Amino acid sequence: MKESNLISRRNFIKTITTATAGVTALLSSGCSSIENNHLIKSENSIIEKGNTILFQGDSITDSGRSRRTAATANDANALGRGYVHLIASQLLAEYPADGLKIFNRGISGNKVFELAARWDSDCIDLKPDVLSILIGVNDIWHTLEGRYNGTIEKYETDYRALLERTLEALPDVKLVICEPFVLRCGAVNDTWFPEFNGYRASAGKLAKEFNTLFVPFQTMFDKAIENTAPEYWAADGVHPTIAGAALMAKEWLKTVRI
Amino acid sequence: MKESNLISRRNFIKTITTATAGVTALLSSGCSSIENNHLIKSENSIIEKGNTILFQGDSITDSGRSRRTAATANDANALGRGYVHLIASQLLAEYPADGLKIFNRGISGNKVFELAARWDSDCIDLKPDVLSILIGVNDIWHTLEGRYNGTIEKYETDYRALLERTLEALPDVKLVICEPFVLRCGAVNDTWFPEFNGYRASAGKLAKEFNTLFVPFQTMFDKAIENTAPEYWAADGVHPTIAGAALMAKEWLKTVRI
Repeated sequence: MKESNLISRRNFIKTITTATAGVTALLSSGCSSIENNHLIKSENSIIEKGNTILFQGDSITDSGRSRRTAATANDANALGRGYVHLIASQLLAEYPADGLKIFNRGISGNKVFELAARWDSDCIDLKPDVLSILIGVNDIWHTLEGRYNGTIEKYETDYRALLERTLEALPDVKLVICEPFVLRCGAVNDTWFPEFNGYRASAGKLAKEFNTLFVPFQTMFDKAIENTAPEYWAADGVHPTIAGAALMAKEWLKTVRI
Repeated sequence: MKESNLISRRNFIKTITTATAGVTALLSSGCSSIENNHLIKSENSIIEKGNTILFQGDSITDSGRSRRTAATANDANALGRGYVHLIASQLLAEYPADGLKIFNRGISGNKVFELAARWDSDCIDLKPDVLSILIGVNDIWHTLEGRYNGTIEKYETDYRALLERTLEALPDVKLVICEPFVLRCGAVNDTWFPEFNGYRASAGKLAKEFNTLFVPFQTMFDKAIENTAPEYWAADGVHPTIAGAALMAKEWLKTVRI
């Protein structure tokens, strides 16, 4: 499955769904690494035995994580109190024999250029096999507040450069791009739109360009608020409640396992 | 379902499993409160719409919860980083329309008598509809360390008095007694046995006496360590890792939904 960034997701899924005998079909479709790295649960997951999984982003990812224990994989404090913690606990409980190493390196307030500034130590050096990124809400929010001068173009250009740099250093990394999202409540009002949709679209465009997985958080929350007030999922419109974080964890796991 | 503490669990389950048409059967079996309180998900759950759910215990429950926001239901910080957080996030995400209010009031180091000392403010005053208690490991641990003079009898007597006092103040509360557990690693060595099994047995005995639900955490962990080192689930033998906490959350939810 080392090739998963090199083939298009559509073809990848086609390979999977047309497989008649799972492993046999995968072996014949060029996924040779399966012989040495047993895939977790099913041939559909991008996560392999022994993988290092890194979550990167802003405060939504950070969620009050401890910096003191940041170097320790799978540490309850270092994983924060948000969606990363929920994903990690579920993966580690389900696959105890698979030696997964999970890290959270989100930092509150980060925009794309700030991820870039710390990318060597907080991403490349960790040599992740799976890298999940959720970034974008501060690129627009801080601009609306007048303390940053961002544009959709700058977001997309910076983000593209970050992804290129990542693949140059870690050609085998499996990327997961998470859709930036907001809910219309709290700090999020009409001034965010339609511009915010452009940021979302750029993230989706980059996922296609780089053939990465894409976690459709905005679509998910849009569905969630059909019957429930947006504050239930994110009190200030940006930071998920624990209910919102649990939805995100479920969606991420669904996407990453394909 | 207000009668769930008054009928035996066996009869309760029998009522459920012999029900041919769910709600209709429950109505005819004396569960009149169903007319006003829609049960969550299925007729099998003890959790009802609008319920306040309180988790009580020691450090395993506490898990670094914030005291500052303790009065706020469903607060990510106030729920800690352990099994309570995982249970709460899952319940709140699954039942957004049901107005659940979830609190964690575990305090590190507590033994049964210390729960009793703060029971009015940290339990009765909150008027929980569902009360989950996990207590016992410090009653033996602190005794082994020479800083408490506990016995199985004292644990059982104190615990029984606490449950009687609870039901006197809150006759309709639905109780969940969690089995104390340890894993043989870290701080847990042979000196804990066979005495620890007596503490477990007492908790189980009280669950039967009071017809409460019982979450078999020790049985669950005993099964988990068949193929995985105990440290993976609880590094010091007492405090669960996030993988251990996720197992606990799953077991608790399975038990409480029956």
